[in-house]
This record gives sequence, C-alpha cells and structure tokens, in this order.
Amino acid sequence: MRSHTLSVRTDPAVIDLLGALAYGELTAFARLAEDARLAPTLSGKAALSQMAAAEIGHYALLHREIGVRGGDTERAMAPFVAAIDAFHDSTRPSSWLEGLVKAYVGDGLAADFYREVAQFLDPSTKQLVLDVLADTGHADFAVREVRTATAVDPAVAGRLALWARRLVGEALTQSQRVFAERDGVAELIIDGTGDLAGVAALLKRITTAHSVRMQALGLST
Amino acid sequence: MRSHTLSVRTDPAVIDLLGALAYGELTAFARLAEDARLAPTLSGKAALSQMAAAEIGHYALLHREIGVRGGDTERAMAPFVAAIDAFHDSTRPSSWLEGLVKAYVGDGLAADFYREVAQFLDPSTKQLVLDVLADTGHADFAVREVRTATAVDPAVAGRLALWARRLVGEALTQSQRVFAERDGVAELIIDGTGDLAGVAALLKRITTAHSVRMQALGLST
Repeated sequence: MRSHTLSVRTDPAVIDLLGALAYGELTAFARLAEDARLAPTLSGKAALSQMAAAEIGHYALLHREIGVRGGDTERAMAPFVAAIDAFHDSTRPSSWLEGLVKAYVGDGLAADFYREVAQFLDPSTKQLVLDVLADTGHADFAVREVRTATAVDPAVAGRLALWARRLVGEALTQSQRVFAERDGVAELIIDGTGDLAGVAALLKRITTAHSVRMQALGLST
Repeated sequence: MRSHTLSVRTDPAVIDLLGALAYGELTAFARLAEDARLAPTLSGKAALSQMAAAEIGHYALLHREIGVRGGDTERAMAPFVAAIDAFHDSTRPSSWLEGLVKAYVGDGLAADFYREVAQFLDPSTKQLVLDVLADTGHADFAVREVRTATAVDPAVAGRLALWARRLVGEALTQSQRVFAERDGVAELIIDGTGDLAGVAALLKRITTAHSVRMQALGLST
C-alpha cells in the first residue's frame, strides 16, 4: 500500500501541473515588470512592480515543491513554454489601463486556479499554496486606478471590458492546448474534481469569481 | 531642544537621500527584470528575477520610511530620476554575463552604500535597513555562473573586468552629478562621516569591498 504523499510524489502529472504553474509565475513576473513601464506615475510603476515581485515569491514556492517531489523545475516547465508565451504575446497591453486590467484579471484567474488545484494535493502542500495566496493585496490599487479612469471617461469602460473578454478567451485557448497535449494534467483535474460534472463545477466557480472581479473594476456588462 | 528623531524627521536632506535610494531600487528592479531576458536558461532567468524582486522589497521599506518622516515618495524620488536613468542607459548589458556582473557589482555597491548611510540614521531606522540588507543571498548564483564562464574561456574575464570598471565609472559620474545638484545630500554624508577625511574613509571602505567582489567573480586585475 502506498501512502498518499508517496503517490503524489511520483505522479508525473503533478510535476507537470506544478511546472505549468511555475512557468506561469515566471512569465507573469517578466510581463508585469515590463508593463510597469507603461505607468504614468512612479507610484503606479512601484505598485505594479510589487505585484510582479509577489509572482516570483510564488515561483520560489513551486520550485521548492517540485524539488521535494524529485522533479527538476526547468524540465517541468519546458512543455508549457509555448502555450504560456503565446498567451502573453497575443495579449500585450497597449496602455497602462489595459496593463492593470490584465494584472488584476490574470492574477485573479491564476489564484483561483491555484486554490482549486490545491484541493488535489496532500495536506501540507495544500496549506503552503493557500498561505502563499493569502499574501496578496497589491491588487487593490488596480481597482482604484481603473475605477477612477472609467469615472472620468465612461467610454473607457466598454473598451476595457472587451479587453478583459479577450484575455479570458486567450487564456482558455491556451489552456485547452495544454490539456490536449498533456493528458496527465487533464486526468489529474478530472480525478481531483471527481468527474466531468466536477470539472464543470470548477469552471463555474472560476467564472463566477471572474465576474465578481469585473464588477469590482466597474466593467461588468 | 529637539530630539534626534524629530531632527531627522524634518531634515529635507534625509528625505532626499531616501528618495534617491528608493528610485535606485525601483529602477534596479526594472532593469534586472529586463536583463533576466538575456538568461540562456529558465533557472538563470528565475534567479535574476528573484534578485529583482528583492529590490522591490527594499523599495517598499524606503517608501514606508519616507511616509513616516512626513515625505512623499514620488516627490522625493523626482530629483534623482535623470541621474539614475542616465546610469542605466549608459550601462545596458549586451550579454547575459554582463547582466550578471552588473547585478552583482551594482547590488553590492548599493548595499555597501546603504550600510554606510544607515549609520547616520536614528537607531530604529538603522536596524530596519540593516535587517533588510541581511536578506540577500540570491547573488551567489551570479558568482558561480561568471566563474564557470571564465574558466571555459579566460578571455571573457578580461572583457568582463573592463565592463565592471565602466559600471563603477558611470556610477561615480552620476553620483557626482547628484552631489553637485543636491548640496543637502553631500552635507549629510560629510556631517555623518565627521569631515572630508571621513568621506574619504567611507569611499575607501566601499572601494575595498568592491575589490573583494571582483576577486569573488575571478575578475581581479
């Protein structure tokens, strides 16, 4: 009889999942740091830079976890480089506000996905992931800045709502690409949620949380 | 009679100094994040990104400190934007190794300067600055990578040593520009060290520490 932890340690799909998350964090860092240059003020630049820095904290956690499980972070990330790079290349913000919406919406979607995935992991890893996610709060400034801008010019809200829809669409496209190529990851999520109805419920929870964020930004449609 | 802390709180030169350090950290973050793209491996990219993230931690500390002293971070940074941007614009790494040397040498010089300046501040701020500086250690990988590269091709060492000299030269040029424009900062350092002999001793300590770092990199000449 294998212990649950040992079984997790040796499941290549878990390493895959952690590798995908790790590369996601590493790229989120680089893109947020780049988008911070669009900031009209130095404090805006600092705020987005701080969001970027938080992503690297998550990366460090995932890197350690992959090592504990006997994996190699670089190898674990490799299969997901193309899909995640494609997401970012197709969603380059052309303005500071687009950058903020991407940071807030993207960070939120990623965090929700993390929280769901944490449920499939052994208790200590689960707690570690949830603890890291509790350490956010840099996103409030994004909400404030976007709400201020849309209050000044309501037409901005419509354009940003479209932009947010495009972000979600591209995220779904690239996720499907990953699931199609990596059967193990798809199975892990199906097994974790119980069945396809469980996967649908997971997607519903993530979609609902996204709508709440869009309302917080004042971009609900 | 004013307390030492109150006197520090109201001294505009201290706000100037903290503002210069804050903008230095903010730009170090952005430039390191940018230079991380030169990394030949994902783990190298992650390591340099983690150095960048540490700079933002320092920025957050300085921002809080400026606020406690009744200053505004954005206003405090403004006078130093031109000089610090000029330093980075004139020292863009053209390779991964140049990026690593800049990160290691630049981070080291900045940390030494911090430690010196911390001596002029009130005890609680001094301790805070020293605590933050103790939280490094991401730089070891830079040393390893540079030493490995120069072992493979000794000619690389000569070119990197020249590059490091250029970095120090540009840092001095821009520091002198700042001191010429902001009398208060120069006076603060002269008062803090006691007199011009004290300033000379400070520069000597920083130069010696720099030589030790160059030896660690295997670039001593």
